[in-house]
Amino acid sequence: MEHGGDLLTYEDQYDGQLIDFSSNINPLGMPKGLEEVIIGGLNSLISYPDIKYRKLKAAVAKYLNCGVENVLVGNGAVDIINNIIMTFDKVAVLTPSFSEYELRARVHKKEIRKIPYSKDFSIELASLAGLQEDELLILGNPNNPTGLRIPKEDLLKIYEIVRGKNAFLLLDEAFFEFCPEDYDSIELFKDEGYKHIAIIRAATKFFALPGIRLGYCCTNEAKVEEISEVELPWSVNALADIIGQFIFNNKKYIKDSKAYIEEERQFMLRELSKLEGIKAYNSHTNYILIKLEGLTEEDAFTHFLKYGIVIRKCSSFKELGQNHIRIAIKDRENNDKILHAFKDLLNKSNRGNRYE
Amino acid sequence: MEHGGDLLTYEDQYDGQLIDFSSNINPLGMPKGLEEVIIGGLNSLISYPDIKYRKLKAAVAKYLNCGVENVLVGNGAVDIINNIIMTFDKVAVLTPSFSEYELRARVHKKEIRKIPYSKDFSIELASLAGLQEDELLILGNPNNPTGLRIPKEDLLKIYEIVRGKNAFLLLDEAFFEFCPEDYDSIELFKDEGYKHIAIIRAATKFFALPGIRLGYCCTNEAKVEEISEVELPWSVNALADIIGQFIFNNKKYIKDSKAYIEEERQFMLRELSKLEGIKAYNSHTNYILIKLEGLTEEDAFTHFLKYGIVIRKCSSFKELGQNHIRIAIKDRENNDKILHAFKDLLNKSNRGNRYE
Repeated sequence: MEHGGDLLTYEDQYDGQLIDFSSNINPLGMPKGLEEVIIGGLNSLISYPDIKYRKLKAAVAKYLNCGVENVLVGNGAVDIINNIIMTFDKVAVLTPSFSEYELRARVHKKEIRKIPYSKDFSIELASLAGLQEDELLILGNPNNPTGLRIPKEDLLKIYEIVRGKNAFLLLDEAFFEFCPEDYDSIELFKDEGYKHIAIIRAATKFFALPGIRLGYCCTNEAKVEEISEVELPWSVNALADIIGQFIFNNKKYIKDSKAYIEEERQFMLRELSKLEGIKAYNSHTNYILIKLEGLTEEDAFTHFLKYGIVIRKCSSFKELGQNHIRIAIKDRENNDKILHAFKDLLNKSNRGNRYE
Repeated sequence: MEHGGDLLTYEDQYDGQLIDFSSNINPLGMPKGLEEVIIGGLNSLISYPDIKYRKLKAAVAKYLNCGVENVLVGNGAVDIINNIIMTFDKVAVLTPSFSEYELRARVHKKEIRKIPYSKDFSIELASLAGLQEDELLILGNPNNPTGLRIPKEDLLKIYEIVRGKNAFLLLDEAFFEFCPEDYDSIELFKDEGYKHIAIIRAATKFFALPGIRLGYCCTNEAKVEEISEVELPWSVNALADIIGQFIFNNKKYIKDSKAYIEEERQFMLRELSKLEGIKAYNSHTNYILIKLEGLTEEDAFTHFLKYGIVIRKCSSFKELGQNHIRIAIKDRENNDKILHAFKDLLNKSNRGNRYE
């Protein structure tokens, strides 16, 4: 399955350092002070991580403002997604969305139902009417690759449908911290005790640490107990354990990153909207889905690679066909670079010189 | 499920630093130069690990002396064990052995057959006569908690049985490097192209890096391909990726560790055999299974904890009942400490003062 971030495959095709617009990492880099924490924690590698991750779960619970008994941790968000899927027989996924939802359901031989997003990539509530008892509904919030948050009112209605059917909602919020502060689903479903919901977040993207592999989740205690029966032991490595206990306290980094991303998102959406020959979809997060007119993803990919830029082709999201790409929002210098490369691409294309 | 290495649970019960005899880690500590490698690799955390682990697999292939197309890597050996189990419907495990074999088979709802080891913990070939087509037979080599290697002639005969039945053998050699150099299963089945076998090794124990989570495996190319369809993406974190590329080159560390363990194993087996009231089983690796006479594992555990020593109770291996413990082989200073504590335990016990 194709994913972003695979620069190694292309490094021979460009003479210099590639710029990764294909995976969506905080452009401010990892939080300050982290190197010291890691170096101080090297000694932890000679022991097994705490098999119960007591300190890490306490740090996550404090950060999320939920009970420690509600917390799951895993080897990246995808590990937790996989474990939750294992505990259901039926899985409903919306399309297009993160490919691993469907893939993990297929690996575990689950009954899979695909429900299309509406044309503007919002969720039509009527499309959820067929939800079944004990079915797991997986929603990205914001969704990947479309970048849209579910409006609060819609989410509450979706939860009502899920509860009414006695189904279960897996809300993948791996990009939560990049979004404008509209609502916090952890707060929203606290009174419910997360009875029909699991909310996944990740250190991967926002804390610019995809290499460390740390995902976490808030759900009801019974589900936490059930997952503990299926999850692998020591799934979170000892450094991720230590790092997780550090990063959440870094309030200034979190605030600065949110502000930075907000500004760059507005800048990129504005600049991209001026370009003819592409349609940039609205985004609430740190990546933007773009539809190409008269060009294929392959044309664009080849073009950008000449500038040392790796973008994400989107044909692996089958519903999107061959003419969509996804780009990350990075720092201003790199954002300017990709805008410049876009202009060159579209100029060539508009002059009728089909890009080869 | 109970595992060794869970010191956190007991830290309140002893005033000082606990000594971990419950997990089996190289007493020489992690290889020299590793800190520099990790510090130099911190920058890798801000990118996803290579999703195909090309450099890591090349390093493993070179170390194991097998083809790079034969290599699997995972989030510790248990991750690979889990993935291999997923690709079979029927699983045969010998008892007693590492609890995760049966547990992972149960999680994935496999048909499980349990085959007992003989009384001296060797494998009776006749007990494998019932092996079925497409059944996965899992053997620890050396086995955990018993510590015995399968003699080369027996292993070849077992493989013949497995091949004759068109079954598959998963050989868990996570403790391989601690053993005397009798044979190398990677060499033994090379001509076969590993058609009916997967051999798992781990960085966890020998390189004293259980925190980093890195397991690897050698099997046939078709099985590697099949596993790639079920394994989680980015299962090995970026630092484990880098560390794996470093440790295998450290030939002096490997040689020194083997010699050190060999000497301490002989020392411990000799000293333990002098004690009345326990039976220390022979071991080919860095841990020793011990049967207590007239004492329970709980008696022993409570006693050792007063000396700041955490041992592994073995009743979670159900076949062993309440009177077996497992201890790691550590450095001489600590080995002397546990021998001293043993003498006190057995003196009390032999004087008729039942330990309370």
